[in-house]
Amino acid sequence: MAPWLTDWRGRFTGRAAALVSPENSAQVAHVVGICARHRIAIVPQGGNSGMVAGATPDDSGEQIIVSLRRMNRIDPIDSETGLLRCEAGVILQNLHEAVARQGRRFPLTLGGKGSATIGGLVSTNAGGTQVLRHGTMRNLIAGIEAILPDGSLYDAMIPLKKDNRGYELKHLLIGGEGTIGIVTAAVVQTVPALLDRCVMWVGVDSPVQAYHLLLFMQARARDRLEGFEILPNRALDAVTQHIPGTRAPLDTAHKWHVLMELVQDDPAQSAPAERASDLLEEAIQSGLMENATLASSEAQADAFWKIRDSIAEAERAAGPALQHDISVPVDAMAKFIELESPVIERQWPGSLTVAFGHMGDGNIHFHVKAPPGVDVSQWHASDAKAITAHVYDRVAAYHGSLSAEHGIGQAKIAEFERLSNPVRIASLRAIKNALDPLGIMNPGKLVPLAKVTMSD
Amino acid sequence: MAPWLTDWRGRFTGRAAALVSPENSAQVAHVVGICARHRIAIVPQGGNSGMVAGATPDDSGEQIIVSLRRMNRIDPIDSETGLLRCEAGVILQNLHEAVARQGRRFPLTLGGKGSATIGGLVSTNAGGTQVLRHGTMRNLIAGIEAILPDGSLYDAMIPLKKDNRGYELKHLLIGGEGTIGIVTAAVVQTVPALLDRCVMWVGVDSPVQAYHLLLFMQARARDRLEGFEILPNRALDAVTQHIPGTRAPLDTAHKWHVLMELVQDDPAQSAPAERASDLLEEAIQSGLMENATLASSEAQADAFWKIRDSIAEAERAAGPALQHDISVPVDAMAKFIELESPVIERQWPGSLTVAFGHMGDGNIHFHVKAPPGVDVSQWHASDAKAITAHVYDRVAAYHGSLSAEHGIGQAKIAEFERLSNPVRIASLRAIKNALDPLGIMNPGKLVPLAKVTMSD
Ligand SMILES: Cc1cc2nc3c(=O)[nH]c(=O)nc-3n(C[C@H](O)[C@H](O)[C@H](O)COP(=O)(O)OP(=O)(O)OC[C@H]3O[C@@H](n4cnc5c(N)ncnc54)[C@H](O)[C@@H]3O)c2cc1C
Ligand SMILES: Cc1cc2nc3c(=O)[nH]c(=O)nc-3n(C[C@H](O)[C@H](O)[C@H](O)COP(=O)(O)OP(=O)(O)OC[C@H]3O[C@@H](n4cnc5c(N)ncnc54)[C@H](O)[C@@H]3O)c2cc1C
Repeated sequence: MAPWLTDWRGRFTGRAAALVSPENSAQVAHVVGICARHRIAIVPQGGNSGMVAGATPDDSGEQIIVSLRRMNRIDPIDSETGLLRCEAGVILQNLHEAVARQGRRFPLTLGGKGSATIGGLVSTNAGGTQVLRHGTMRNLIAGIEAILPDGSLYDAMIPLKKDNRGYELKHLLIGGEGTIGIVTAAVVQTVPALLDRCVMWVGVDSPVQAYHLLLFMQARARDRLEGFEILPNRALDAVTQHIPGTRAPLDTAHKWHVLMELVQDDPAQSAPAERASDLLEEAIQSGLMENATLASSEAQADAFWKIRDSIAEAERAAGPALQHDISVPVDAMAKFIELESPVIERQWPGSLTVAFGHMGDGNIHFHVKAPPGVDVSQWHASDAKAITAHVYDRVAAYHGSLSAEHGIGQAKIAEFERLSNPVRIASLRAIKNALDPLGIMNPGKLVPLAKVTMSD
Repeated sequence: MAPWLTDWRGRFTGRAAALVSPENSAQVAHVVGICARHRIAIVPQGGNSGMVAGATPDDSGEQIIVSLRRMNRIDPIDSETGLLRCEAGVILQNLHEAVARQGRRFPLTLGGKGSATIGGLVSTNAGGTQVLRHGTMRNLIAGIEAILPDGSLYDAMIPLKKDNRGYELKHLLIGGEGTIGIVTAAVVQTVPALLDRCVMWVGVDSPVQAYHLLLFMQARARDRLEGFEILPNRALDAVTQHIPGTRAPLDTAHKWHVLMELVQDDPAQSAPAERASDLLEEAIQSGLMENATLASSEAQADAFWKIRDSIAEAERAAGPALQHDISVPVDAMAKFIELESPVIERQWPGSLTVAFGHMGDGNIHFHVKAPPGVDVSQWHASDAKAITAHVYDRVAAYHGSLSAEHGIGQAKIAEFERLSNPVRIASLRAIKNALDPLGIMNPGKLVPLAKVTMSD
């Protein structure tokens, strides 16, 4: 059972009374019913690749893990609507392949696609690199099925485009981190396959310049712009140094880089490469960038993306760092990076910030690297906590979120409680207690200090 | 106070202890706080033009109406993000005009735009004629501010594109019909102004043919197709007969008609008229329609839309009818109309069905007209209830919704309870009781038999 008791980042380990792996929703309902009768706490688990230890049991040894891994059926795509039903345990990569075989695309994708399941992605409202155009999981879910904490089946699998019959449980289950029910199946929206794409690598002098480039590209390319990722030169250096077979796309030096993807999925649209070079030329003339290059083949396009996708790994190889998955309003992110990074580097001498990721969504991964040569465990015991608290304080000052993509789980629950508006926490607690009055559904995750007694 | 005590359709009249009209959210909070202390029930009201009597007080005379009409400030559009903040009492038409003056567009529109307020539109998750492309209010709301039932301020006005900090109260307030809080302000998404449009009028032989035309148009025109409305010839006849200045767009006879709008809001797109005629030619050759015409001027485009927008009025002039705002899955709507209409007309001889509206959303207004010459009040007392129950029974058999756009309010609450899955009702009640434990927020609306005592 060991692999399922520790979270993906290896920071939390729990114990469990059992791991249960049902093969259909009736069995899930049965298990939950038993747990409700005996007040046994349940930890729903998909691929166990979440970033906030939401799927890791506590150390009481009294909780059980309900793993959805065996529920992995994928139905054919409905040819008229493009909708597809699948079970919660389906792994994202398998969904991608099944959809591609039928000539369409499921656009949401992320680094953990080889292990993340639909149930986990729904429950963390996952994002990834194509959110700019297609939104997070919330946007792509047309129907949902779940087992609620009393063992009842909530069946909302028939997709209605319009339905105004009150509060939508679907919207609580999405991003609910398994705290109000176990998602057993979903109806997902597929989109037309790409006909062609053009991946661009751009050198800019600053996040602010990148932001103005974003505004320009969105105004001109509209939703043909599918990706807009930013990285500092520091991150590019780490990649080319630590990841074999990578090299800098431009031979000019730049402080910051942007990776952009322009797509074609409609025969009525102009060819992406043509449109892209027109736009780049205009952008350079308008002073929106320093230099740029277009991937001249699919292989090169993949090579550009590989740089982006390898940052986390390269940074890990380069040394210990604190990671923060944060968002602020899109128009404030450049300012946040430019103003806050030097403050941190001054306040904790030797530390280095690396801010990279989904700038088009106002969401970056804000890493703070330990000073070179520092004793890591001592650093974790001393400065690390203060740095993270500082980062989240600053995010709060920008009215941002300390969890843009990954959720709260157990890893962020204390900071979440510390920094949230009490009205927000009170409403979370009220909803949690209302839908899970016994407190058996993933207790200790997401909802700070959820009251678990019946007397409330 | 009389105009605010009766609902827009004139079917429900209540009494009220007072009508309060605050001018800012602090005042709203103050009023709600007083009501919470004294357990006074509140009915939030915007333009009082909702269709299900959700803004009408009961007849106890003990409830108070909180009208948002005086809170009607509109901020300028943020030029970078296209977002705009406004207060809840802003009337939709005024928002349209303010946005248009700044060179952009707020795409949601509907017949009641001269009275419907942003707060009412949010609280009913309103739809209208442009949902096909732009979605309902839920899709267009980036931020929200509300006063919760205990008088506390819920401020989520800073729009974050990504934010995974648990259950989103925003998604409960949208479509919440004022039962868990008073919406005081919102951040709405504006979109680029239209550069051009082409409105088409099409004759088809059946709803099934119309549905296949829809699939064709969506596959080819993608999101340039903004409107797809269906009407039977019966409705066109009623309009040309009762609405001065209207005439049939085609001189050929057809059993059913479709109104389509193709738009251009991007200079990179081809001209709509050109694209539309290509598509129509292909559709005719493929047997997807009988005949079609393009509006040759904006005046003619408006004339086509006027026919669509006058159906309700024309039908009213033509005689009494029962109205049902229903949805089923998009791919089942044609079948629903074709199979269910004759059953009703056979079962209640002399009655006539008129199914029209937003076919692209799987949402139609399903009218059943009284037999000519019948005593209307007797009909209402006898057959009418059975017909409506039958319609909703059939909708339920298709896994559809008895309220696609208008909400539940008090008008539909009994049928909603009769036909809903008990799990759905139980979760609605749990959420309602959790967020409004005193039961003072619009009691008797939306949530069937909501328990209002503290002891639960
Ligand atoms: C290399 C890598 C890159 C990543 N990149 C991104 C990224 O770019 N964007 C992003 O958003 N995320 C990213 N993630 C995070 C991760 O992919 C998501 O959080 C994902 O949703 C986890 O899926 P899972 O099936 O492994 O869920 P788990 O880790 O098993 O569970 C995650 C949470 O969901 C709950 N849960 C799981 N299944 C269910 C269910 N069926 N019903 C109810 N609750 C359930 C669990 O209790 C837990 O709270 C990345 C992860 C990795 C490893
Ligand atoms: C001619 C006509 C055509 C229409 N066509 C359509 C259509 O095509 N599509 C569609 O979806 N609707 C349509 N409607 C319905 C109507 O426009 C919507 O329901 C609209 O949202 C009502 O807005 P209002 O401000 O008048 O709300 P009200 O009638 O005042 O209130 C509606 C509900 O919202 C609540 N409420 C109002 N303001 C607030 C607030 N600030 N905070 C919390 N709760 C609040 C009320 O308590 C009530 O439950 C139409 C109406 C008319 C008259």
